[in-house]
Amino acid sequence: MSMSDGVLKNYLKTRKKIVDDALDEYLPPETDYPAVIFKSMRHSLFAGGKRLRPILCMAAAEAVGGHHSTVMPIACAIEMIHTYSLIHDDLPAMDDDDFRRGKPTNHRIFGEGIAILAGDALLTEAFHLISDAKLYDSEAAERIMPVIHAVTDAAGFRGMIGGQVMDLVCEGHTIDLETLEYIHSRKTERLISVSLHAGAVLARADEEKLAALADYGKNIGYAFQIFDDILDVEGESSVMGKDTGSDEAKGKATYPALVGLAASRTRCRELIDNALAALDVLDERADPLRGIARLTIERKA
Amino acid sequence: MSMSDGVLKNYLKTRKKIVDDALDEYLPPETDYPAVIFKSMRHSLFAGGKRLRPILCMAAAEAVGGHHSTVMPIACAIEMIHTYSLIHDDLPAMDDDDFRRGKPTNHRIFGEGIAILAGDALLTEAFHLISDAKLYDSEAAERIMPVIHAVTDAAGFRGMIGGQVMDLVCEGHTIDLETLEYIHSRKTERLISVSLHAGAVLARADEEKLAALADYGKNIGYAFQIFDDILDVEGESSVMGKDTGSDEAKGKATYPALVGLAASRTRCRELIDNALAALDVLDERADPLRGIARLTIERKA
Repeated sequence: MSMSDGVLKNYLKTRKKIVDDALDEYLPPETDYPAVIFKSMRHSLFAGGKRLRPILCMAAAEAVGGHHSTVMPIACAIEMIHTYSLIHDDLPAMDDDDFRRGKPTNHRIFGEGIAILAGDALLTEAFHLISDAKLYDSEAAERIMPVIHAVTDAAGFRGMIGGQVMDLVCEGHTIDLETLEYIHSRKTERLISVSLHAGAVLARADEEKLAALADYGKNIGYAFQIFDDILDVEGESSVMGKDTGSDEAKGKATYPALVGLAASRTRCRELIDNALAALDVLDERADPLRGIARLTIERKA
Repeated sequence: MSMSDGVLKNYLKTRKKIVDDALDEYLPPETDYPAVIFKSMRHSLFAGGKRLRPILCMAAAEAVGGHHSTVMPIACAIEMIHTYSLIHDDLPAMDDDDFRRGKPTNHRIFGEGIAILAGDALLTEAFHLISDAKLYDSEAAERIMPVIHAVTDAAGFRGMIGGQVMDLVCEGHTIDLETLEYIHSRKTERLISVSLHAGAVLARADEEKLAALADYGKNIGYAFQIFDDILDVEGESSVMGKDTGSDEAKGKATYPALVGLAASRTRCRELIDNALAALDVLDERADPLRGIARLTIERKA
């Protein structure tokens, strides 16, 4: 954990810029036909996301000795998948949110029909990008198919969508900790974990390092979601860019509501300690991952 | 064109059964957790579809000397993509349809939120299935990545979604023939064409045969959509399983409305003649494709 706050902050800023530029290059301009779909996709894709998943993907590749440029297509594809899930989650039939990151949600600007299609298009484009052979050297291409399989495992009904289904089904109902943890792990942890996995696989990580990164991912993924719940209860609307306490207002269970705020904070710290311990088999090239673990429970939004 | 009506009918029935069984095997049972998503996915996936796209995929593989079992994952994946597009198209924010093939549409039974997620899950599962290395021999796996790229090209904003976007944007507006043909080709032809392409590529077709099948696909794809418009104007509600004349009621342009019924029928016949001519480079193993071309403009629904 040798990265100072300043160095980490600069690292994240630089990496965010690399992801933003790559996404901008991969996606057609707003002037392409039919323009409205590109405007809608770009509205949500460039709405100020932190780019956590692609940054983790690149950092995992580098932590095992690879180069971040090798994993740009998969890193950006995962960000597209994350973005599509936010667009669909915000729809009136789901969470019915009007704002995200301080900006109107996709359907508030483009209407529900286009918002649904923009989500569909981002999900489809993610796999178009991952499967573009000309973006890889011939050796990397051999490892892409299992990576696509892992990403779809994390994003589909076995992962993210399964979590969203239970989130929707349980709204307004009392749920137990086990169900909440199912929702948390599926909605958030799985896509975070597969970001690390994909980056490491493409960088030819051995089994020991893959297992360490899986362990790290699981722990920061859980911590990330619990800390989101804490922020939702405690945070200020201006910082979150959306209404705080909105989970409670929607009848959604949160970790603090089930176990209390103090226990939630303790659990977050334990998870981050576990994540850091998992990285012990990796050298200083994993320092960005160590810094990100720390930030997971120190952020304000 | 040596297949008699009876032989063709039996062929299609047998093939539909093979696809139905494969889809049933590939998808988790309704008892899996969370059950509602599997119920919702299965409701639409087993709602009586003709399985045109997977049957074309298998037939293309066999027309170039391959075996249909080699292409089952990709054939079923394309059917999942087709089904997801129907679920999302039927939503209130899109075409707002209550019935499809005589059954209530997905959102009418499961609600809009689950219907959106079931569509998302089918789309994601399609790529999970295509990328499952254990379903292929090692040689086929090498050709999967370009096939995924081609399928996402046909299904995304360059293809099907692009067509759906323009369909939505143009609703209630007067459009010209060029725009209508853009919508037709994107919404229908592209996924039909890529079904043939994928099957042929996995069966190691040479360039000449791939080009012939591309030509065939483009022609039957256009004919299929024009004939759908004709059925929509002329058909009986009981046969179509949905309200006929519904395109007109929704302010949607149809081919007959723009060029007249007689000219629409003539155009369909021309397209089918072109499709049959394209198959001249293929031997009698392409007879099922010849029969399907003929059926495209002789069906009642």
